[in-house]
Amino acid sequence: MQYPSNIKKDYAKKNISYANRGMDLEDIINQSNEYYREINRAIIYKKPTPITISEVKYGNKERIITKAYFRTPSTLDYNGIYKGKYIDFDAKETLNHSAFPLANIHEHQLDHMRKIVLHGGISFLIIYMNQEYYYLDANDIIFFIDNYTRKSIPFTYIEDKGKIIPKKIKPRLDYLNILDELYFKEDDR
Amino acid sequence: MQYPSNIKKDYAKKNISYANRGMDLEDIINQSNEYYREINRAIIYKKPTPITISEVKYGNKERIITKAYFRTPSTLDYNGIYKGKYIDFDAKETLNHSAFPLANIHEHQLDHMRKIVLHGGISFLIIYMNQEYYYLDANDIIFFIDNYTRKSIPFTYIEDKGKIIPKKIKPRLDYLNILDELYFKEDDR
Repeated sequence: MQYPSNIKKDYAKKNISYANRGMDLEDIINQSNEYYREINRAIIYKKPTPITISEVKYGNKERIITKAYFRTPSTLDYNGIYKGKYIDFDAKETLNHSAFPLANIHEHQLDHMRKIVLHGGISFLIIYMNQEYYYLDANDIIFFIDNYTRKSIPFTYIEDKGKIIPKKIKPRLDYLNILDELYFKEDDR
Repeated sequence: MQYPSNIKKDYAKKNISYANRGMDLEDIINQSNEYYREINRAIIYKKPTPITISEVKYGNKERIITKAYFRTPSTLDYNGIYKGKYIDFDAKETLNHSAFPLANIHEHQLDHMRKIVLHGGISFLIIYMNQEYYYLDANDIIFFIDNYTRKSIPFTYIEDKGKIIPKKIKPRLDYLNILDELYFKEDDR
């Protein structure tokens, strides 16, 4: 049986997550967002997985979807509000040590980032790579794409332009601290 | 066979939509948002339906979900950015002529609206009722809930505090004009 490349990637992903870190990147971010909501610091959620429902049956107590297909997302996975600002980001991981392959981001996701920035929102990627979680701002991603023809972002660029996100117990990944540093420096925290 | 009340409501919904208006409220809002994105006025999307996937099979070319359940949403259906502001809203309809039953909004959706407003975002409902689409701001909904013990918002309150949304060809429902009026009056459009 032949699987399309995105399925192979999914398998690879699960393998990194469970083998090396014990916890899925998505879970880590969901837990962090849950904590941010608990302490009322930010209201950020993961969007549900986009699917096309094709068959629904009626069970005893509820409707059950019996056939549905995964759709390619045209936006990023997480969005919400922080300090009055619109926040829109995604989380990606790679086993590659020297560069982050741009194939990890769909073309319309890049367009979406561009639009969010133009409309005054904050957009970024959280990239898990070389055992660290990097914050890479949409502006730096867009600059790279517009100025280089490469198919992947070198790790040196991520190290240079990005920021290492502090790992904690609560929240697991304190990415809002990076936003404070980059976007809300005037604020008294 | 017994269906829970939310399924009955779904049936009622489809009946209003297809019988009386030819187009689903959700479709009307999706088309309006698509148009707003096309002309680059706002970046607003409907969130995918929240589901819990319990079985996935591998077909010839793609993964097929063979069992999944609908989840109760804890946020509102639509969110995005307009003029730099975080926007978060939902669309509801009722056949009731004299009042909008608050049972149409889940408790955690009300909490969510409250939080969005506190964090500096704009939240509202689009209510289709008595052949018109009404914009009702989260602040007016919260005020009503905090000050009255009624289980439904009287139509007179919606007429008084809400705004009728203009129906057009493009966008079908020009709800951002109401935001301009309420939140961006200083702007030169």
